[in-house]
Amino acid sequence: MATAAETAAMRRAIELAARGLGSTSPNPVVGCVVLDAAGRTVGEGFHQRAGGPHAEVHALRAAGDAARGGAAVVTLEPCNHTGRTGPCAQALLDAGVARVVYAVADPTPTATGGARTLRAAGVDVESGLLAASAEAGNTAWLTSVRRGRPHVTLKYAATLDGRIAAADGTSRWITSAEARADVHRLRAESDAVVVGAGTARADDPHLAARGAGAAVQPLRVVLDSAARAVKPGARVLDDAGPTLIAVAEDADAAHLTRLADVLRLPRTAAGLDVPALLGALHGRGVRSVLLEGGPTLAGSFVAAGAVDRVIGYIAPVLLGAGPAALGEAGITTLTEALRLDVSEIVRLGPDLRITAAPPAKET
Amino acid sequence: MATAAETAAMRRAIELAARGLGSTSPNPVVGCVVLDAAGRTVGEGFHQRAGGPHAEVHALRAAGDAARGGAAVVTLEPCNHTGRTGPCAQALLDAGVARVVYAVADPTPTATGGARTLRAAGVDVESGLLAASAEAGNTAWLTSVRRGRPHVTLKYAATLDGRIAAADGTSRWITSAEARADVHRLRAESDAVVVGAGTARADDPHLAARGAGAAVQPLRVVLDSAARAVKPGARVLDDAGPTLIAVAEDADAAHLTRLADVLRLPRTAAGLDVPALLGALHGRGVRSVLLEGGPTLAGSFVAAGAVDRVIGYIAPVLLGAGPAALGEAGITTLTEALRLDVSEIVRLGPDLRITAAPPAKET
Ligand SMILES: NC(=O)c1ccc[n+]([C@@H]2O[C@H](COP(=O)([O-])OP(=O)(O)OC[C@H]3O[C@@H](n4cnc5c(N)ncnc54)[C@H](OP(=O)(O)O)[C@@H]3O)[C@@H](O)[C@H]2O)c1
Ligand SMILES: NC(=O)c1ccc[n+]([C@@H]2O[C@H](COP(=O)([O-])OP(=O)(O)OC[C@H]3O[C@@H](n4cnc5c(N)ncnc54)[C@H](OP(=O)(O)O)[C@@H]3O)[C@@H](O)[C@H]2O)c1
Repeated sequence: MATAAETAAMRRAIELAARGLGSTSPNPVVGCVVLDAAGRTVGEGFHQRAGGPHAEVHALRAAGDAARGGAAVVTLEPCNHTGRTGPCAQALLDAGVARVVYAVADPTPTATGGARTLRAAGVDVESGLLAASAEAGNTAWLTSVRRGRPHVTLKYAATLDGRIAAADGTSRWITSAEARADVHRLRAESDAVVVGAGTARADDPHLAARGAGAAVQPLRVVLDSAARAVKPGARVLDDAGPTLIAVAEDADAAHLTRLADVLRLPRTAAGLDVPALLGALHGRGVRSVLLEGGPTLAGSFVAAGAVDRVIGYIAPVLLGAGPAALGEAGITTLTEALRLDVSEIVRLGPDLRITAAPPAKET
Repeated sequence: MATAAETAAMRRAIELAARGLGSTSPNPVVGCVVLDAAGRTVGEGFHQRAGGPHAEVHALRAAGDAARGGAAVVTLEPCNHTGRTGPCAQALLDAGVARVVYAVADPTPTATGGARTLRAAGVDVESGLLAASAEAGNTAWLTSVRRGRPHVTLKYAATLDGRIAAADGTSRWITSAEARADVHRLRAESDAVVVGAGTARADDPHLAARGAGAAVQPLRVVLDSAARAVKPGARVLDDAGPTLIAVAEDADAAHLTRLADVLRLPRTAAGLDVPALLGALHGRGVRSVLLEGGPTLAGSFVAAGAVDRVIGYIAPVLLGAGPAALGEAGITTLTEALRLDVSEIVRLGPDLRITAAPPAKET
C-alpha cells in the first residue's frame, strides 16, 4: 500500500508530467518525485524533451544522496532500455532507492521490463497508484501506442447554434480572448496542428502557439491537394515553427520546396487520404494532432473514425445562419451519429469549453 | 437587519414560490413563511393558482394564533388591493404580525402600496432580503409586467454541432430520457407552449406536460397561417389541455372551430405577426411562453427581439449534416449576432442543459 506521502507525491508527479506536453514526442510525458527514507520530497523532475534526460534522472539528480533508502514515485514504469539516455531502472538502482511506486505500466515492447529489473535487484515495487489520473495525463501518447497513429483532437469555435461564421463570412471574433488564449495552450501541448486548404485560403492562419508554455512549436500542417492554397508569403510558411504541406501525388509543388516540407499523399473521394497522413505524421514522431478545421476537413476526419477527442469552444451567441461547425461526415441517419461522452465543461470568460470523447472501447 | 431565521425563511419562501410556476398566471408566484415571536417557523404557504388564496393567507392560516407578534417573510411585497381575494396587507394586520420582511417590491400599480399600509399601521417592514434570488424566481412574471408581453423561453434540443435532426430527418432521440423529462418540467412551468406549422406537420406533437408538477396544463399554441397543418385528429387537439391555433386573418379555419380556439393574426413577410401573437396571449393571462420550435419559428422570434431566455439541450453527438437549431433570424454579420450570458450549465444524463439570456438592460 502506498503511503499518504507517496500518494501526494504521485499527484505532484502527474502535474509535473503535464509540463512536458507538446515537447516530449515521440516519448510520453513523465513526472517523478523522489522521497527520502522519512518520506520528505527531496527531488522532482519531468521529461522535458525527446533526447533529454528522463524524469527519474532529473529527480534523482536533484535528490543526490538523499535518495538512498528512499522512494521514487513516477507516473510511468521506469524504462529498461538504453535509448538516447541510459535505462532509468539502472539509474534508480545506482541511486540506492529502496522503493519505486509507478502509476502506469509501459506498454511499449522496447521499454517495458523496468519493474522486473528493479524487483530482481531487491527494490520494493508497487504499480497502479493514481493510474487513471496518470493515464489521462498521457492519453495522447498511450492512444498513439495502441493505435499506431497520433491521437487526434478536433477543436472548433462555434456559436450556441453551431455556426462558425455569420452569413457574410465574418467570424472575428465569435469566441472571447480567454477562449482564444486557451487555444494557444492547446497548440503548445500538441505535436502538430492541421488545417484544410479552405481555412488556409480564407484565414491565412499562422498556427503557431503563443504565450507561456509554448517552448516547442507544433508542426504546422496544411492539407492542400493541388498545392494552390498555400502561396509563398503565407503566414504558415514563416520561421515561427516547422511547416508541412500535404499535397496530392500529382500536385505541382515546386514553389513550396524551399519554404516547407512537402508530403505527398494519395487522393481519395473526400480529399487527401487521412490514414496515410496520420501514418506519415506518426513516422515523424508526431503523437498528438490538433485538428483546427475547417468543417470540411473535420468532417472527413470524423468519417475516417480518426477523432479521439472533441473540444468545442462555444460562445453564447445566436446567428441563425452561416456555416456549421462540422461538415459532411458520411452520417445520414441518427443511428450512425458519432456519440461522445462529455468529460469536462469549463467556463472561459463568457464562453464554454466542452470536452468530449468517443466512449472507451477495447483496443 | 434581517435575522438568520428570517434569511432562512426567505430562502424557503423562494422555494415554496417556485411550486406555483405555471399555474398562477396572470399572478406572480409568491411564497411565504410565518415565524412566531421566537423566530420558529409556524406557517408556510405559496400562491397555488390564480383565483386561489395568496401565499400570505395560506401561511397565516397554518400559523393561526402563533403568528401574533411574529414575522411574515414573503417573496413579494404583500398586495394592498381587494382582488379576487382580500388584500394581504389587511390579513397580516388582522393576524397581528409585528414584522413583515419581503424580497421584491410589487411593480404593478394596482397591487403596490402594501408596505405603506403595513408601516402606517405600526408594523416593522423590511424589504430587499434575497431580492436577486426572489426576482430570478419570478422572472417571467416581472418581465411580462415590464414589457407588457409574456416572457419567452426559446428551447431546443440539438447535437454538439448544432443539428436538430440527421440528414434523413431522423431525430428520435438526439437527447436522453433525462433531458426529455426535463422538457416536461419546463412545459409544466409555462403558461403556453408554442410551435410552428412545420413542427406540427413533421411531428404531430402533443405538447402536454407529463409527470410530477404538471397540475395545470399549458395552453398549446400552433402558428398555422393557412390552417392547413393542424388537421382534425392531430394530437394537439386532444383534451389533455387547452389549444389555440393561430391563423392568418384570411385563413379558412372552419374545420377547427369546434376543436380548438382559433386566433386570427396579421401576416408579415416572416409569417404570422409575432408581437400581435404575444399581445393576444398576454391578454389571455399568459405570462410565460415556451417556444418549442422548429428552427423557422425560433428564427422569427429572435428576429422580433422576443426571446428572453434560451435553453439548449445539447447532446454530445456529432452529425455533420441535418437542419440547424436556429433558422434565419435576419442576422447577416457577426456584429448583429444575438449575444447572451450563460446563467447555468447542468448535466442531464449524458447531455447538457445550457441556459442563457440577453444581458440585463434598462427597461
Ligand atoms: N471556428 C473555427 O473553429 C474554424 C476553424 C477553422 C476554420 N474555420 C473556417 O472554416 C472555413 C474553411 O472551412 P472549409 O470547410 O471551407 O475548408 P477546410 O475544411 O479548411 O478545407 C477543406 C479543403 O481541404 C482540402 N483537403 C485535402 N484533403 C482533405 C481531406 N481529406 N478532407 C477534407 N478536406 C481536404 C480540400 O481542398 P483541396 O482539394 O484544395 O485540397 C478541401 O476542400 C473558413 O471560413 C474558416 O474561417 C473556422
Ligand atoms: N430538436 C428540437 O428542439 C425541435 C423542436 C421542434 C421542432 N423540431 C423539428 O423542426 C422541424 C420543423 O421546423 P421548421 O423550421 O420546418 O418549421 P417550424 O419552425 O416548426 O414552423 C415554421 C412554419 O410556421 C408557420 N409560421 C407562422 N407564423 C410564423 C412566424 N411568425 N415565424 C415562423 N413561422 C411561422 C409557417 O408555416 P405556414 O406558412 O404554413 O403557417 C412556417 O413555415 C421538424 O423536423 C421538427 O422535428 C425540432
